[in-house]
Amino acid sequence: MSKHYFSKLIEKEIARLESMPQPPEIDVSDLDGDKLAAFIDHTNLKPEATRADIIALCEEAKQFHFASVCVNPSWVPLCVEQLEGSEVLICAVVGFPLGANTSENKAIEAEELVELGAREIDMVLNIGRLKDEDYTFVYEDILQVVDAAKKAHVKVILETCLLQENEIIAGCVLGKEAGAHFVKTSTGFNKAGATIHAVSLMRRTVGEGMGVKAAGGIRTREAALAMIKAGASRIGASASVTIVS
Amino acid sequence: MSKHYFSKLIEKEIARLESMPQPPEIDVSDLDGDKLAAFIDHTNLKPEATRADIIALCEEAKQFHFASVCVNPSWVPLCVEQLEGSEVLICAVVGFPLGANTSENKAIEAEELVELGAREIDMVLNIGRLKDEDYTFVYEDILQVVDAAKKAHVKVILETCLLQENEIIAGCVLGKEAGAHFVKTSTGFNKAGATIHAVSLMRRTVGEGMGVKAAGGIRTREAALAMIKAGASRIGASASVTIVS
Repeated sequence: MSKHYFSKLIEKEIARLESMPQPPEIDVSDLDGDKLAAFIDHTNLKPEATRADIIALCEEAKQFHFASVCVNPSWVPLCVEQLEGSEVLICAVVGFPLGANTSENKAIEAEELVELGAREIDMVLNIGRLKDEDYTFVYEDILQVVDAAKKAHVKVILETCLLQENEIIAGCVLGKEAGAHFVKTSTGFNKAGATIHAVSLMRRTVGEGMGVKAAGGIRTREAALAMIKAGASRIGASASVTIVS
Repeated sequence: MSKHYFSKLIEKEIARLESMPQPPEIDVSDLDGDKLAAFIDHTNLKPEATRADIIALCEEAKQFHFASVCVNPSWVPLCVEQLEGSEVLICAVVGFPLGANTSENKAIEAEELVELGAREIDMVLNIGRLKDEDYTFVYEDILQVVDAAKKAHVKVILETCLLQENEIIAGCVLGKEAGAHFVKTSTGFNKAGATIHAVSLMRRTVGEGMGVKAAGGIRTREAALAMIKAGASRIGASASVTIVS
């Protein structure tokens, strides 16, 4: 599809959002620790994470019933072993955290990780190309990962701290068009993480049919609830045990 | 090869370094701007870099005769186009900047980038596995990239700010054993970049037969010369024009 097609779509979306009333806040009053745990991708993406760190991550995820463990590719086989028989999913990152890999390589990485046992793929979109308004490139980059991931759900990381408001909207529109299941605010490796404002904008853009994951810098129960109030349906955190305790 | 084999090799190297006299400082008195330029990989690895940024990077590299441009994978085809007919090499990063991808994916990424036109591959080793002393894993991870890169030169990034002194030595020994051409201090994306101490230790470990690349936080001519004095044979920098001017 052409740049013109996507440009029109994004323009239309920006106009729609401008005339849209602020949606009501989500009610989080019944979210106790157990219910909150189901929102959380329990995350360790540190390059220096050891085998023992990843085993501990899996143990905590089983104990607290987090939605998933979110790990770097090289740890997926260990997580499969550790999480056998549990309901905790494995979420692996692709093109992470810069998003500037080739589309071919992102797709190959996603395919390999799903074959290894990942059920969710958190991919970083190509940020520079989004800034270039090279919408066809960004769309096809996401589409190739969605296709390669088959039944696994794909979350598109926008890295909102690097984007203008209209670029956030564009990223959401392109992710939705490409059939991704979630948009996600941040990698946690750039200058800032999730903000209420970005989460709310992303939720208004994608509507109710897609997930919104807030990640980066969420370290307390209050912060997690504030993100859910703003529209997040998933939280990425490493301080997950603190958040639900 | 077994963990035992590598452990012995690393122990022997640590003992050798302890009894080794401090090598003489490298003479840098004749390194004017032109000569210094030949040491520099002119680098833009920002995820938000645009097409115009990469074109400017290539223009500067041609004008100042830097050794290479160092870019994210998605920009290699543009650099091939921009650098046609010049002597500036294309250096692309693999498994960057976390190094925690699968070995299979690192090898596939390297192979693709060399086919696209990269002549140098800067790969990040698997830092967590190095900390785990899973030496066979780290060795084979590097070896697969070296094999996949064929004639292209491979630099192994250690991310020294995350490593103990003995882990830096181990990373150098494993890189050398696997047939890499350079060891490199840092990605520039973690908490600190190159230090004189790390560069000197790396040079003493690998000897004269391998390159040592200092990268991360080198922004002045003085800083670049200090790294070369300590043993660096290549400098990674984005402030390259300032360094040689």
